[in-house]
Amino acid sequence: MKIVIAPDSYKGSLTAVEAAEAIERGVKKADSTIQTILVPAADGGEGTMDTLVAATGGRKKSVRVTGPLHSEISAEYGILGDQKTCVIEMASASGLCLVSPEELNPLTATTYGTGQLIKQGLDDGFRSFVLAIGGSATNDGGAGMLQALGLELLDDSGQVVPFGGGELHNIKEIDLSGFDPRVKECSFLIASDVQNPLVGKEGASAVFGPQKGATEEMMKLLDNNMVHWGNKVEQATGIRLHEMPGAGAAGGIGGAFQAFFPAKMKRGVDVVTEYAGLPQALDGSDLVITGEGRVDFQTASGKTPMGVAQRAKESGVPTMILAGSVGEGIEILYQYGVISITSMIQQPLTLEEAMQRAPQLLEYSAEQLVRTFIQCNKKTESGVLHYETQTND
Amino acid sequence: MKIVIAPDSYKGSLTAVEAAEAIERGVKKADSTIQTILVPAADGGEGTMDTLVAATGGRKKSVRVTGPLHSEISAEYGILGDQKTCVIEMASASGLCLVSPEELNPLTATTYGTGQLIKQGLDDGFRSFVLAIGGSATNDGGAGMLQALGLELLDDSGQVVPFGGGELHNIKEIDLSGFDPRVKECSFLIASDVQNPLVGKEGASAVFGPQKGATEEMMKLLDNNMVHWGNKVEQATGIRLHEMPGAGAAGGIGGAFQAFFPAKMKRGVDVVTEYAGLPQALDGSDLVITGEGRVDFQTASGKTPMGVAQRAKESGVPTMILAGSVGEGIEILYQYGVISITSMIQQPLTLEEAMQRAPQLLEYSAEQLVRTFIQCNKKTESGVLHYETQTND
Repeated sequence: MKIVIAPDSYKGSLTAVEAAEAIERGVKKADSTIQTILVPAADGGEGTMDTLVAATGGRKKSVRVTGPLHSEISAEYGILGDQKTCVIEMASASGLCLVSPEELNPLTATTYGTGQLIKQGLDDGFRSFVLAIGGSATNDGGAGMLQALGLELLDDSGQVVPFGGGELHNIKEIDLSGFDPRVKECSFLIASDVQNPLVGKEGASAVFGPQKGATEEMMKLLDNNMVHWGNKVEQATGIRLHEMPGAGAAGGIGGAFQAFFPAKMKRGVDVVTEYAGLPQALDGSDLVITGEGRVDFQTASGKTPMGVAQRAKESGVPTMILAGSVGEGIEILYQYGVISITSMIQQPLTLEEAMQRAPQLLEYSAEQLVRTFIQCNKKTESGVLHYETQTND
Repeated sequence: MKIVIAPDSYKGSLTAVEAAEAIERGVKKADSTIQTILVPAADGGEGTMDTLVAATGGRKKSVRVTGPLHSEISAEYGILGDQKTCVIEMASASGLCLVSPEELNPLTATTYGTGQLIKQGLDDGFRSFVLAIGGSATNDGGAGMLQALGLELLDDSGQVVPFGGGELHNIKEIDLSGFDPRVKECSFLIASDVQNPLVGKEGASAVFGPQKGATEEMMKLLDNNMVHWGNKVEQATGIRLHEMPGAGAAGGIGGAFQAFFPAKMKRGVDVVTEYAGLPQALDGSDLVITGEGRVDFQTASGKTPMGVAQRAKESGVPTMILAGSVGEGIEILYQYGVISITSMIQQPLTLEEAMQRAPQLLEYSAEQLVRTFIQCNKKTESGVLHYETQTND
């Protein structure tokens, strides 16, 4: 028997690698002869770069960049085990996680540091990039990133337009002449689930502005500025971002990738599982075990357990989920190849206690899950079990 | 597929019947074609009579009796569905549950009410009795019970000896002449796991005295009195109870049954599951689901999940446990035919919340357990699962 172990991280308690190892220990306790393949996973959000580096045996490099609120910070990019793919988690340079709640400022936050990470990757020789663009603090349409790569944004008096979504309306002209010529030699795979357009009530500013600190007034301002930005981009490139699905991702950086880079956007979990080797692991496997901290109806919107299960289902392999906590509406997951969803918790515990004991709880739960799963294949002393085989739905 | 559902009650939240019904709902949600047989179980402790009456479609009768501290109370006995077996839970008339912590008094507590229940059963025509003797407040060697059935206990001056273990030393003579002659026509099956002798450091007073309110001093007094009682019983019947295994059960009432009744003692869970129909239910079944509130290493000392699993193993049927809470040392249960042990809890919850939500949690957990269990028998689109059948240990 072969089991693929492909969990996400369990927020606040286990990285995806730690979770996979805990599950593996439990599987081996249930039956030490079971072959296990570990495929730590992520959905493009926080931790994606670390998980991919761990999953492929790669490494990380530190880079000094301009942070979201303009101060210099240390960010990282990852180099996958193939030695040629550079993975950048935008949040590392321009993320919400770098800004305290009081400092949040979508008017001034910049994606310049993300551009600097890409530039460093280019300088270091990489031409294959994966960008995870979740968790940004920015709403500047990717203007900062483009500036870091040589795009010039000038105002009426020929001055460089300052950072931030609050300044985009000043742009008179986009000057492409200095844009890094190496960009067009590259491939950019953008890991993103977001389908929102650039502007309007479904656009970047209206939908994601609030979580970045935008008030009602700021959202209007930012959206107007984004319309202007879209106009300037269209003038410069011929590409119209305003209504383009996905252009609104990460404060509009999705649009910048569409207009200025040889970029493809793909659902986060699918990018990660492809690079982490899930398709190969599924070959000849009997079961996938996945999970993450919280599993509920929202898991069905492209979160790791659902993405993993979908890919597994394509290969005819069933998936079982071990969650930290199971919420409402999980039945929606059954159609995606998920067989069962249980929590690792084994007694009354607070969230903190559960997070502290997660390694032991996950190991125990995986053991019991597999003990249950493999039982029906065992012949009893009185003969084969009385159960007709049924075909899958 | 056929699944036997044989849980105990979940203390403080579900009766055994409610638990069985919740599990059944979950099983049917996993696969509505699965045949289910409900066998609500108990281990001879609190709730045993109710569970047996429910399991066999019987009924209950109220009886006014003398309570453990001599006031008149309402007790009950049960009549099983066979219309001929009378089930008496000693705790109903002489139980700890009837005494508040401040009132506990093993010196005066009497088993007289238990004897009155038996007498009522005899008057009502029953000749087949099951006695569950857990949870007593008494330490009187069953003297009270015997008095209610006509045994005369007289002191030096020919007066009736008063109630309670603290008075046993006064007995000059046991007069059997008035003992209810119907007793010898009956069968008495005593549901008890206790193997302790009547006297000494492993005896009733030393081991169980404290939980009934006995201080160090009281324990010595009670034990001395119990030695005297044992002497008098030996004189009257020829039967020596002092070192007899099981004679110490329920404050020495075990010995009274051995000496004065046609009685057999049997492990509580085995008595209950026999009468509730577990052996018949197991025939042709694929799985047993059992459980109770707390499952840990102590479950291995004859608690319901273990007893059920053992009986199921004899029939070649595997057992899975759904607990309220899983504690330490559960691996000890695997040898008894238990395949897996998991908690019904699916998120961080307090004990109170878990108890309140028990019906929904148990239903959900049973559904996920069965979804997991039946999966490996399903053919995938790509063919049979890659798993060699193994014989059971």
